[in-house]
Amino acid sequence: MLNLFEIHDWKIIEQEFNPSKQKQAESIFSIGNGSFGQRANFEEKYTGDTLQGSYVGGVYYPDKTRVGWWKNGYPEYFAKVLNSCNWIGINIEIDGEYLDIHQQEILSFRRELDMKSGTLSRRMRVRFKSGKEIEVESLRFCSMHDEQVAAIRFIVTPLNFSGNVKFTPYLDGNVMNHDSNYDEFFWEEDSHKVDVKKGFICSKTKKTNFIVSTAMRFSFWKNDDLLEIEPKNLSKAFYVENSFDYFLEEGNHYTLKKYVSIVSTINHSEGEVISKSIDNVRQAYMNGFDYLLKNHTSVWEEIWSKADIVIEGDLAAQQAIRFNIFQLYQTYTGKNDKLNIGPKGFTGEKYGGATYWDTEAYCLPFYLKTADPRVARQLLIYRYNQLDKAIENAQKLGFNRGAALYPMVTMNGEECHNEWEITFEEIHRNGAISFAIYNYIRHTGDVEYLEKYGRPVLVAIARFWAQRFNYSQAKNAYVMLGVTGPNEYENNVNNNWYTNYIARWCIEYSLKVDNSLEKTLGSVLNEEEKQHWKAIIENTYFPLLEGTNIFLQQDGFMDKEQLEVSDLSLNERPINQHWSWDRILRSIFIKQADVLQGLYLFEDHFEDQVIEDNFNFYEPKTVHESSLSPCVHVIIAAKIGNLSKAYELYLRTSRLDLDDYNHEADEGLHITSMAGTWMSIVEGMAGVRILEDGLKINPVIPECWTKYSFQILVKRNPIYISISKEGFQIENKGETSLNLEIAGQKTELKSNEKMNQSFLLKT
Amino acid sequence: MLNLFEIHDWKIIEQEFNPSKQKQAESIFSIGNGSFGQRANFEEKYTGDTLQGSYVGGVYYPDKTRVGWWKNGYPEYFAKVLNSCNWIGINIEIDGEYLDIHQQEILSFRRELDMKSGTLSRRMRVRFKSGKEIEVESLRFCSMHDEQVAAIRFIVTPLNFSGNVKFTPYLDGNVMNHDSNYDEFFWEEDSHKVDVKKGFICSKTKKTNFIVSTAMRFSFWKNDDLLEIEPKNLSKAFYVENSFDYFLEEGNHYTLKKYVSIVSTINHSEGEVISKSIDNVRQAYMNGFDYLLKNHTSVWEEIWSKADIVIEGDLAAQQAIRFNIFQLYQTYTGKNDKLNIGPKGFTGEKYGGATYWDTEAYCLPFYLKTADPRVARQLLIYRYNQLDKAIENAQKLGFNRGAALYPMVTMNGEECHNEWEITFEEIHRNGAISFAIYNYIRHTGDVEYLEKYGRPVLVAIARFWAQRFNYSQAKNAYVMLGVTGPNEYENNVNNNWYTNYIARWCIEYSLKVDNSLEKTLGSVLNEEEKQHWKAIIENTYFPLLEGTNIFLQQDGFMDKEQLEVSDLSLNERPINQHWSWDRILRSIFIKQADVLQGLYLFEDHFEDQVIEDNFNFYEPKTVHESSLSPCVHVIIAAKIGNLSKAYELYLRTSRLDLDDYNHEADEGLHITSMAGTWMSIVEGMAGVRILEDGLKINPVIPECWTKYSFQILVKRNPIYISISKEGFQIENKGETSLNLEIAGQKTELKSNEKMNQSFLLKT
Repeated sequence: MLNLFEIHDWKIIEQEFNPSKQKQAESIFSIGNGSFGQRANFEEKYTGDTLQGSYVGGVYYPDKTRVGWWKNGYPEYFAKVLNSCNWIGINIEIDGEYLDIHQQEILSFRRELDMKSGTLSRRMRVRFKSGKEIEVESLRFCSMHDEQVAAIRFIVTPLNFSGNVKFTPYLDGNVMNHDSNYDEFFWEEDSHKVDVKKGFICSKTKKTNFIVSTAMRFSFWKNDDLLEIEPKNLSKAFYVENSFDYFLEEGNHYTLKKYVSIVSTINHSEGEVISKSIDNVRQAYMNGFDYLLKNHTSVWEEIWSKADIVIEGDLAAQQAIRFNIFQLYQTYTGKNDKLNIGPKGFTGEKYGGATYWDTEAYCLPFYLKTADPRVARQLLIYRYNQLDKAIENAQKLGFNRGAALYPMVTMNGEECHNEWEITFEEIHRNGAISFAIYNYIRHTGDVEYLEKYGRPVLVAIARFWAQRFNYSQAKNAYVMLGVTGPNEYENNVNNNWYTNYIARWCIEYSLKVDNSLEKTLGSVLNEEEKQHWKAIIENTYFPLLEGTNIFLQQDGFMDKEQLEVSDLSLNERPINQHWSWDRILRSIFIKQADVLQGLYLFEDHFEDQVIEDNFNFYEPKTVHESSLSPCVHVIIAAKIGNLSKAYELYLRTSRLDLDDYNHEADEGLHITSMAGTWMSIVEGMAGVRILEDGLKINPVIPECWTKYSFQILVKRNPIYISISKEGFQIENKGETSLNLEIAGQKTELKSNEKMNQSFLLKT
Repeated sequence: MLNLFEIHDWKIIEQEFNPSKQKQAESIFSIGNGSFGQRANFEEKYTGDTLQGSYVGGVYYPDKTRVGWWKNGYPEYFAKVLNSCNWIGINIEIDGEYLDIHQQEILSFRRELDMKSGTLSRRMRVRFKSGKEIEVESLRFCSMHDEQVAAIRFIVTPLNFSGNVKFTPYLDGNVMNHDSNYDEFFWEEDSHKVDVKKGFICSKTKKTNFIVSTAMRFSFWKNDDLLEIEPKNLSKAFYVENSFDYFLEEGNHYTLKKYVSIVSTINHSEGEVISKSIDNVRQAYMNGFDYLLKNHTSVWEEIWSKADIVIEGDLAAQQAIRFNIFQLYQTYTGKNDKLNIGPKGFTGEKYGGATYWDTEAYCLPFYLKTADPRVARQLLIYRYNQLDKAIENAQKLGFNRGAALYPMVTMNGEECHNEWEITFEEIHRNGAISFAIYNYIRHTGDVEYLEKYGRPVLVAIARFWAQRFNYSQAKNAYVMLGVTGPNEYENNVNNNWYTNYIARWCIEYSLKVDNSLEKTLGSVLNEEEKQHWKAIIENTYFPLLEGTNIFLQQDGFMDKEQLEVSDLSLNERPINQHWSWDRILRSIFIKQADVLQGLYLFEDHFEDQVIEDNFNFYEPKTVHESSLSPCVHVIIAAKIGNLSKAYELYLRTSRLDLDDYNHEADEGLHITSMAGTWMSIVEGMAGVRILEDGLKINPVIPECWTKYSFQILVKRNPIYISISKEGFQIENKGETSLNLEIAGQKTELKSNEKMNQSFLLKT
């Protein structure tokens, strides 16, 4: 463990400035509000190594992918989340020398992310080349309450002098993407305007024509007194600033309060964005910083009351789980059906800020249990809204009759990844979407959703699978050729067990749902289709290792050289950094849970011994080189009583970014896998399972924890669960009673009832 | 058939100008001399649709491939053949109006490629907007005798006026590549100079730093009299010109003779290229156009005396086969060990002008039988010289101990293709190189080559294969996972029959060669290595269709939907233009000979019935969407007596570009597959096989041919073979006697002996 930052139950703290970890810190200390987000770049000039990043949800650029040998059905572009207008900028100059801690002596430095209140603050003392020393104290937040508003409080205190200091708050839209394919500038200017203590920049994205207006307003204070100033204005393309010199008296605090609003055509019409952004900053200015902050913090209070996990006896684990929950909620709030959860959230450019199957497979279970069901529903509606595009996507590949293939990576429903072996072949993602619908229904019982939105999606996905299977005369069964399973260290394999399994399940569940709605709404399937589907369900081919319980990952899996991860030397790992792709593809090593992903989702379909045998077969072959991998293994390990393995892998997932295991936190955080960490505790350690008619729980507790507790939502009932070495407590804070299954025993937990269990837990 | 151009036994003729087929014509009428080449662009200005192309052998640019998800071992760049200095330019202006047949009325037009003499000529009459009419007659060639020299004779005759005409011969180095990834200009200027009636441009390629100097000199004549002129000079970066006005008298011929030399650092030092190019044009100027032309033509005479195939009774077939032979010899002459045969030769940019396995698999057999053995040897030395790079290439993928993987596409020995499924996986190319060595030895008996150059290559390739196989416990045999066979409509398959077969053969042949050299030179293998190789040879896994003679293309082949090409509708073909890559990969359809490629190479290893059964199994599944495919099927079809199929596929291969079957001749010609066409006649129709100790022949003749004849070299003996409906004649024009096997009967053909056979041929 690298222990990059100080361990604290509610905070991430950096006590000393280290330029070499500035980019990691910029990721870790990122803040956002579901609508936009900002890396922890400094307000003032900084000439050291930095990755500037300000991202507006849903605003992207289709960066052309034109190299290689294009073949029919390859996507035309790779979507990029855009680095947008830099809104944090406040430059400080003394006697012509800029505040820039890459150039100056740093006397003290403290940066702090307060997860309870959702604020990023910094306090530092700096000595200028002239010997003049100042203290800077900044606090900023992206308002969770007013989703188009952010605010910065920037306090300068001259420590050993009185004299002129120049303040320059500005907006700068002249920003590039680090990862653009052609070093292209992605923006065009719409307009800009600057006035006394205010200004805006309105920019338009090339090709996609998203318009984003960023407006600012500011005030300037000496201690608690508002000061009259007469700033000079400057503006040019993509840039507006105000600047003013002020005579600062030693020991006094001079505060610049900068209010910003970011409004885009994601939510507003083209004509509205500028006026709306100006209105927002006027309102924010009038309400004042403290008022905005109070509203912002109260939203976090509300979130924590539902979503927090308290861990006692293990401060690092406590900090980590809160960090994960915090990042998830500042990435996605469920307020906007056009947004989704990019793998890096608002913390970096990588993976293009687009939607992956991560959302359904990892994030949805988190939101289902910790937020109002509308949040999870919004994620499902997002896919429903893109159903037509998913049907088009399948058509491009040659499928017909309403078959839908959801994209591997998308912004607007179109596929926008650029590896054929993923886009055409990693089709199991379609299954995750059907499973998410099933899971949502199981948690909420929302039949109205199923009728209107769920069934069309389920049927279109099942139609895809029915066409994607083909009948093999040789095997006398339905096979599925040329796929990539969740384990992306294999490509273009035949009969991936997981894909075949979830595909068959999708067809089966779709038939079941259609059947259940037939009486009231009629069936949407014709008899021939139903017969074809049933034939597949009854005769799907699955590769098995004869004479054992082992489901083979794919045809030919046993032809590989039979090795285990323990056969690898440390300097070969991670293999994706040390081995050629050729060697990886041919090796037995598994990037992330594949067969086990299926056993996790469909646990109820298999005997415990089967799950255990497969875990023992696959875990030693799994290198966990995807952030999404360990959590599934934690959950299964906990289930089969292998608690040491469960805890080992839990550590790996929970502090992945905080301790930067993979040396890549500088590029952004693994937001979607953070939901997996949460699952590791709730479904893994606590053994929580949502049944169609209730709740199953089968908890364990790691050796070094004394107690852990959390609340989950089950059919709208908040259920509080607390687990210690002595036993566990479960309380139904909801209004309806709940069926419970504890270690195989069925019981009922009435509204407002509490239950204590003190049987021996597996530790 | 499109019959784009007129049919003639020695010429390609265009009688009428059609702007919509100008780009096709530019490809078809390309000229070259093995050292450089030029598309049939017009000398004068042309504002219609055109693909300018002037290519210098071996000069390339490593165009960066940076889009996608890079993985270890992916090549860094894709090499591009460079469009180089335009040296043909001669502008004509009358009263300020440029000669430009896209703008003017064309009274007559004739373009002619004379394959016997290797010249491109054009005669046309054009009416200017002013009503003035001129005749233009041009003739040009790239000298096969002086490989750095080209010359143009450009005659202007005023038809209905006397008056001033402006002539502007120029060189223009400001040329782009049509297929650059980033619209980048690939050249930097080194220097340029212009003087009276001469000038040069010297340019340098970015990144690769190749230097190319192009020099010109010209003279101007009225009928047969040299004229004194005083041209104006103009020069700027990448451009030099002379221009002069001359008063032309009606009915007289005014001739501009332009001499050009192209010299590059491929053959000369940096300091030499400019002076060498200037010397060359001075010498050419002094020798004069007719002298240069005579020398050039005499080289072609020599080539045709050895390489011609005469076909009687089928003029289209006669023209086609000569076109193929002509293109091959103007692409590669064997003079330079740094050059090789790009799939498009000097006729287009596509495929980057680089070296593919086409060279060994298709071109080598052609040169072996039609040219001095030094030509084929040069091709093998090219690979020998790149052995170190091939070892590096294998190391990048994780192989060791001197294992070599030759690149799929290369300029300098480095891999420069950019699809992992090809570069890592289409490794059978390695086998083609070993087979080429075997084939060379079989034709020439050149043991000195084998000792010095052949064995190191064979051993390094065998070492690769020995590591690439892995032992499968499940199959109790050596398997080869994750390959792409010659049929590129499959990727990442296990146990491709062809690859396994040729890999095992490579190991076996390498052992045999090492063994044969052991007594004189010692073995280069240690005992352990030999034992490992033997274990593989004795226990290689091959996928078979049980109960039949069918070798399965790969594991799982029979799980595909069992269709035949006849099940496809016409509007689905070619499938690579109508189907998604996903659908193609999963389908049973075969792009080009795969199992059959193996049965072709190793015919002697199999019973005739086995070959016939496999042909009948695979041919109906083969869509022949590679230009390299039909020839192999022709050869096997002829062998098994399916002459109608053989002739059908022969037509397809022989006039592929002349009739532009695939609508892509505009991008350049399929040079390497032209050798396959030649093989279709010699190995297919004539059934010629080279044995280690002689020659086997088993000819057939297509219905519509009355006779065909050709000469081949066998162990340095020119053997003349003539086949008619009545029988065939074979004559040994060499100095040693030859073992013959005719329809299973063994005999001997002594030096200068002729033999007539009149047994019934299969028709």
